Amino acid sequence: MLPKGYKVSGISSGIKKSKKKDLGLIYSSSDCLAAAVFTANKVKAAPIVLCKRNIKNKIRALIVNSGNANCFTGKQGLSDANTVAKEVAKELKVKLSNMLMASTGIIGVKMPKQRILNNIGRTVSALSKKRINDFASAILTTDTFPKIKSITLNIAGKRGVICGIAKGAGMIYPNLETSSVKHATMLCFILTDIGLSRPLLNNALNEAVEVSFNSISVDGCMSTNDSAFLLCNRMAKNKIINKEGKDYQVFKRGLNLVFSELAKKIVLDGEGATKFITIKIEKARDCAQAKKAAFSIANSNLFKCAIYGADPNWGRIIAALGASAINFNENNLDLYINRKPLLKKSKILKNKDRIKGKNVEVRLVLNQGKSMWVVHTCDLSPKYIKINANYN
Amino acid sequence: MLPKGYKVSGISSGIKKSKKKDLGLIYSSSDCLAAAVFTANKVKAAPIVLCKRNIKNKIRALIVNSGNANCFTGKQGLSDANTVAKEVAKELKVKLSNMLMASTGIIGVKMPKQRILNNIGRTVSALSKKRINDFASAILTTDTFPKIKSITLNIAGKRGVICGIAKGAGMIYPNLETSSVKHATMLCFILTDIGLSRPLLNNALNEAVEVSFNSISVDGCMSTNDSAFLLCNRMAKNKIINKEGKDYQVFKRGLNLVFSELAKKIVLDGEGATKFITIKIEKARDCAQAKKAAFSIANSNLFKCAIYGADPNWGRIIAALGASAINFNENNLDLYINRKPLLKKSKILKNKDRIKGKNVEVRLVLNQGKSMWVVHTCDLSPKYIKINANYN
Repeated sequence: MLPKGYKVSGISSGIKKSKKKDLGLIYSSSDCLAAAVFTANKVKAAPIVLCKRNIKNKIRALIVNSGNANCFTGKQGLSDANTVAKEVAKELKVKLSNMLMASTGIIGVKMPKQRILNNIGRTVSALSKKRINDFASAILTTDTFPKIKSITLNIAGKRGVICGIAKGAGMIYPNLETSSVKHATMLCFILTDIGLSRPLLNNALNEAVEVSFNSISVDGCMSTNDSAFLLCNRMAKNKIINKEGKDYQVFKRGLNLVFSELAKKIVLDGEGATKFITIKIEKARDCAQAKKAAFSIANSNLFKCAIYGADPNWGRIIAALGASAINFNENNLDLYINRKPLLKKSKILKNKDRIKGKNVEVRLVLNQGKSMWVVHTCDLSPKYIKINANYN
Repeated sequence: MLPKGYKVSGISSGIKKSKKKDLGLIYSSSDCLAAAVFTANKVKAAPIVLCKRNIKNKIRALIVNSGNANCFTGKQGLSDANTVAKEVAKELKVKLSNMLMASTGIIGVKMPKQRILNNIGRTVSALSKKRINDFASAILTTDTFPKIKSITLNIAGKRGVICGIAKGAGMIYPNLETSSVKHATMLCFILTDIGLSRPLLNNALNEAVEVSFNSISVDGCMSTNDSAFLLCNRMAKNKIINKEGKDYQVFKRGLNLVFSELAKKIVLDGEGATKFITIKIEKARDCAQAKKAAFSIANSNLFKCAIYGADPNWGRIIAALGASAINFNENNLDLYINRKPLLKKSKILKNKDRIKGKNVEVRLVLNQGKSMWVVHTCDLSPKYIKINANYN
């Protein structure tokens, strides 16, 4: 469900040979404050350059295309991004400075600008409060299902909505440059009518991204186009949240939930995935060490192959933990897979049952401190290789 | 060919269910100076602890088993390693302090000590100047062929030999703690009769490891048992090399060649590999940045899948370069695959030919400085997953 004041659309403009939807538009009838985080990859796509220029302006619309990343396309790419954004602005009767933009698809191929330009009228005409599925479909690439999560919140007596739409299945190891930490193609658009001050909007986005998109990995490959946007048009008419009190807590919990659910949907849709894996590192010295350990395991091909084979191969977990170079005592580890203990104070418990079901929870207790981190990933299957070797 | 004074053997002791050879022994009839480097993994196998204790002593023998890593086996593992080494020493009429040891195989399973003890007599009786193939076979695990490289050098009129034997196919991303840099299971034993001083022996080993084993990756997974040894019994009777003059240069070039050839053999035997990939990063600001960029590409699953599919997917190379977070100018890159130009000053050249043959050379010129680094890796194929998911 879209929050008040927003309309979206999604159509096919012919960028994709399959004729599937490939052009999406978000529009707000009133000015939005916007916050965004972008990939830490040194190579950044043209739409990201445009967004970084406009992000502090009043935002009215966001145009997204799939099928072409407009990345590594040089000056031509920047000029194409500008031309498209300008035409959308004109059609919507807003300014270029009110526009944001995102692209996902193949790298290094010139944007098929004319196809997009020919279809801007249709995209704008199609805008509707009800076409959220069209928009969510138009931003997909190798994804097998659209990813949407909405919640309704009560902010001091006013009803507000947070609605998120995301895409991503491969090249997923987002490291979005949040204020605190520098870490696929994933794209995420969060729309809300709840009013916040700009500093709190930025804080809330950074925090939510750290525990969601910056805590997942499908294949350990960081994309050039990863972007997460949070738009806020204040049409819920709540008293603007401008301090870290109860209202902010309610908003933040809601936002974290929407982000986390979308991040999990991306892992569930991971290319070739047959298992959904949760890695919990507990009792670490600090969160940074716990996160480092969790990702060292999540990005280990040997671990991911073992899980594909349904084998609780704790040796590979311990080898990956050791490779992470964090501090731990190798004689005092507790390890559980799906709640079955495999190590207790590093003593090996005879438990050679195969892993059952699609969900796999690895819980590794370091017994070193009080911090924890949770990362989600998927297994590595022959289908991942098929998708990424035979795409021509 | 073994250098003067060395004998080796390799037999089956029943550690491996397949009854393949699994116990190897190296013996020198006179005292050796020894140098060694071990994995940077925080979890280190029991034999590594024993070796770190003995490495500065006069060394006479090195016992190796395959089929069991004696890793994550706690105090029992250390005690088992000691017992085995002690019995070998006794049989050879040397001291425990003269012994080195290495193990490779499954992690976290108690060492089948009794089987080894029952076969020490046979292993010692089998020692011979000619059984290098037996030894090279006894140290293998998932390898498909033994890995040996020998050269003969002329050191100031004396004939000397450097002979190397290695193993490794999976869990290959060695980061051996050399003096300068901290970075599978690979094992490597280099024997020479050429005499060097201890400081030069250590320097030569560290340098050779950096450009060989610390510059390869099969699957990005660092092992707990990686070890490289260099034994030097001085029986070539050359004037001991104790300064960095011409003799040292001859030795070092020879040693680098033996190490590099063995490292390449490991990549050639990479689990499931169908392509042998060389990644050259040129004109980088410094060697550390070039190495970081090369490994970011070498460890990218998306890149490895594309090469398996014989597609010169330069977009994935550029995305991996960007993810490495080194400094470069994205508008001034030159890229070649098997000498065919794909990018010239970042301009995309139309060249969509499939990659032909087993050898793939990626040459990426950053145009930022004068440094370079070369890394070897292999592609990612469905067979890698089969080997690592269906091993039970």
